[in-house]
Amino acid sequence: MLKPTLECIPCILRQVAEACEYATGDLTLRYRALKDAIQHLNNMNVNQVNRVKIGSDLNRIVKEVTGNPDPYHELKKLSNRMALEWLFKLEKGFGNNIPFMLALRIAAAGNMIDYGAVKTVESPKTLFEKAMRTEVDSRKMEEVKHLVKESQRVLYLCDNAGEIAFDKLLVSAVQSLGAQVTVVVRGGPILNDATLEDAYEVGMTKLARTISTGNDFCGIILDDSSHEFQEAFRRSDLIISKGQGNLESLIDVKRKTTTIYIFKVKCNLIANHLKSQIGATEIFIQKLNSLYF
Amino acid sequence: MLKPTLECIPCILRQVAEACEYATGDLTLRYRALKDAIQHLNNMNVNQVNRVKIGSDLNRIVKEVTGNPDPYHELKKLSNRMALEWLFKLEKGFGNNIPFMLALRIAAAGNMIDYGAVKTVESPKTLFEKAMRTEVDSRKMEEVKHLVKESQRVLYLCDNAGEIAFDKLLVSAVQSLGAQVTVVVRGGPILNDATLEDAYEVGMTKLARTISTGNDFCGIILDDSSHEFQEAFRRSDLIISKGQGNLESLIDVKRKTTTIYIFKVKCNLIANHLKSQIGATEIFIQKLNSLYF
Repeated sequence: MLKPTLECIPCILRQVAEACEYATGDLTLRYRALKDAIQHLNNMNVNQVNRVKIGSDLNRIVKEVTGNPDPYHELKKLSNRMALEWLFKLEKGFGNNIPFMLALRIAAAGNMIDYGAVKTVESPKTLFEKAMRTEVDSRKMEEVKHLVKESQRVLYLCDNAGEIAFDKLLVSAVQSLGAQVTVVVRGGPILNDATLEDAYEVGMTKLARTISTGNDFCGIILDDSSHEFQEAFRRSDLIISKGQGNLESLIDVKRKTTTIYIFKVKCNLIANHLKSQIGATEIFIQKLNSLYF
Repeated sequence: MLKPTLECIPCILRQVAEACEYATGDLTLRYRALKDAIQHLNNMNVNQVNRVKIGSDLNRIVKEVTGNPDPYHELKKLSNRMALEWLFKLEKGFGNNIPFMLALRIAAAGNMIDYGAVKTVESPKTLFEKAMRTEVDSRKMEEVKHLVKESQRVLYLCDNAGEIAFDKLLVSAVQSLGAQVTVVVRGGPILNDATLEDAYEVGMTKLARTISTGNDFCGIILDDSSHEFQEAFRRSDLIISKGQGNLESLIDVKRKTTTIYIFKVKCNLIANHLKSQIGATEIFIQKLNSLYF
């Protein structure tokens, strides 16, 4: 795992404060949840715990204290709806034959829709318009296509609601190249991450076998995941992983499967680690048995 | 006082994490300081304490744990040096007779130099170049001039190092209009706020009587300040207050003195409270006995 740096802790707490605001209008409950989150932070070794674990634990506290099991529910519905509208327009233009490269590009751009990492008043529509102007490395895109062509069982790890509608294009394009795809979403509400409910809502479940991690971590913690997911993870010969949370938690997990990380760089730690820049939309390919790029 | 909102707490903790980084290269000490700061947060009623007090307390912990009494020392020296270079160029152009409005504008723009509120890699030079293109309300500037003309004893509350060099222009312009000026800096190192050392370094002490608050709070907490400062505060008939920290801690302190707040809006809370926008350079005038704008 990537160890939390000093700046991760306030950033996680910022997410928690935002989750409190989404969770309830009751100021007393909001403060109590933040207070309990601080107490939890106080009891842990912040420099030794997986960041995805800390974030997930603290968000679980928000859900418990505020009594709201899914603070981002409305935002997720909105994101899905806006994304589906865009998708509908796109499909009218291309029919069912959107080129692989365009599908990949749109799936990559979709990672900009993230209310967990960046509090924003922009609608998914505005975000997506911005996203479509985003640069994506075309050499890397070619390599992704090549890797997909060579694969039989692709595991596709989703990130956010809204984004998951655009992921349908890439899942479909991967299937067109002959691979079988298993799509993975979170097992329970965490931030604005996509769950089975979102997968169903955008029609992903009709397109490919969709399973969940079996937990509500904002990333992948293999040992604490369902048997079904662990099995699918081990049996895949290519992993496509969306978003920074999945990257953070997977990047140094030992495995034999080549992994394609598709994500928007959302903080300094990752930008520095991957020699990229905040805001960039990146594709990183982690080959067999290599623990780092 | 302005009560801390939920988002203040992570923001204060972010400042603390940054102060840790400035304070020491020793990772263990950095984590220990952050950990102790979290523990302190855990022990306080975060929604009932003055934000300036929380920030100051936590930064004091950083200083104690890291053994660095002044984490921003180098940054402050750099800011002063860059600001003085700019000032030197300006004075070559105008001699000693910089017009009041220009002096006010430059002093206002100077508040952009703030490593405490916004971590930046930009040099004070770049910041100042940006600042000089900043909009300032000219009607408000006229009102400031009018208020200064009517005053005899002006209390000038400084904010940051670097900025304090530009404050010299406004102090001098206020003196030219006939008022006596007492300049106030922090009584000890806190973030990048100007102390007596900075006042001396940029030549402020030669220009006007310069005193300190007698404490190292990142704002004004009158009851905990030195007798000298309390006396000067009570005897002044106009207060010019630079920066958001001073505003946050002064805005609802009962007093009879008209206060001119000159500051860059640095967070949502203040932007919403004053119906302004993050990044705007504002002048707010709080008249006699009115507790709010």
